[in-house]
Amino acid sequence: MDASELRRGKVAAHLIWGAPTSVLVGDFLFARAFELMVETDSMRALGILAEASRVISEGEVLQLTRAHDLNLDQDVYLQIISAKTAELFAAAAEAGAVGAGADAAAVKALRDYGMALGIAFQLADDALDYGATAEALGKNAGDDFNEGKATLPLLLGAARTRGREAAFWERTITKGERTPEDFGRARELIVGSGAIGATLDLAGDYADRAKAAVSALPASDWRTALEDLADFAVSRAA
Amino acid sequence: MDASELRRGKVAAHLIWGAPTSVLVGDFLFARAFELMVETDSMRALGILAEASRVISEGEVLQLTRAHDLNLDQDVYLQIISAKTAELFAAAAEAGAVGAGADAAAVKALRDYGMALGIAFQLADDALDYGATAEALGKNAGDDFNEGKATLPLLLGAARTRGREAAFWERTITKGERTPEDFGRARELIVGSGAIGATLDLAGDYADRAKAAVSALPASDWRTALEDLADFAVSRAA
Repeated sequence: MDASELRRGKVAAHLIWGAPTSVLVGDFLFARAFELMVETDSMRALGILAEASRVISEGEVLQLTRAHDLNLDQDVYLQIISAKTAELFAAAAEAGAVGAGADAAAVKALRDYGMALGIAFQLADDALDYGATAEALGKNAGDDFNEGKATLPLLLGAARTRGREAAFWERTITKGERTPEDFGRARELIVGSGAIGATLDLAGDYADRAKAAVSALPASDWRTALEDLADFAVSRAA
Repeated sequence: MDASELRRGKVAAHLIWGAPTSVLVGDFLFARAFELMVETDSMRALGILAEASRVISEGEVLQLTRAHDLNLDQDVYLQIISAKTAELFAAAAEAGAVGAGADAAAVKALRDYGMALGIAFQLADDALDYGATAEALGKNAGDDFNEGKATLPLLLGAARTRGREAAFWERTITKGERTPEDFGRARELIVGSGAIGATLDLAGDYADRAKAAVSALPASDWRTALEDLADFAVSRAA
């Protein structure tokens, strides 16, 4: 989708096998997952996962329609990452709770946990795209910038430097006219403006919400693991 | 998938909206269909459709791996079109019967009908790719040739003209080195060899199988419509 050359730190499938094969194998995996879900014989879990699939694809479309928009509202950005990323975390946590026969309060707690964790994860991921090495990110830094994707670090960085850098942002994002050197300058401006720190602060807030969501569940190694995971989603980017 | 510029007689979505949007909207439609299936609350129908989704994507992958292969066995070709096309017809007919509460014999009859209808349809479609105008086909003629897709008209036409045209087929299909003029010559060779007629004869055999499959169902306007549909799947290409 994002034409990145790296995925999870490895050469992306479309570069090895070509785009048609990669798309088809994606369809196959979707269909195979659907079969495995039917095998659970849980219509409720199927409903959760069907809705998640639809919400995720809506989120991706929404993001695509709002690329290149430097005036994107922070609330709309959060709506996009809630749909395209956090819905999957929420559905996974909710379906797990349903499958385990948890009561309604625990199902809701775990769904809320997944949603907050997913938002924290995506905020950190968007920060990493302007700050990390390819090794740490598992894909090339700069991909978001090169697609003109309106992520929070870009929105904040551009807003904070617009006075003196209006022409740079107008050209590279609004008009989408980028040279290979522009990413380095964009990164300097964004990091220098404190936008990475602000993005990671917000990610930390969502990690705290995730931990709060499971605080009413009985203490256990599993609950501790969920809490640690929320912290790690942010600390990996710090 | 096939990079065709026309689909159902209209300009293809990827040319209007771009490939990423088209892929995402495809994902959305898949997810939305999944949601609608869950609403039926029929785990049996979901199982039929999940299996069909998986078989279809396997068929597309199989076809892709066997492109450019002029020695493809006719049985493997039939296996490919059974999976990538006819499985959808079979699942639709079967799920309809299940949804209507039909008995096991009628469910099987309708599944068999759909499978044979789908094979007849795809054989005729593959013949049309070497014979029809874009208006009749709803997409550009020559797409299969230009992808080196090993369809029955090509396999038969190449086999029947290989003595004198070995170099032409070797270059255009096996090596995939095609010029814009090559499709016209390929079409002449294939039509002249009688391969289109042979493909449509086989399509007619499958249309007869489809009609035989529903012959034990009670006579009705609906059964007649199914029979007419089987004939039309082939006659549209004659």
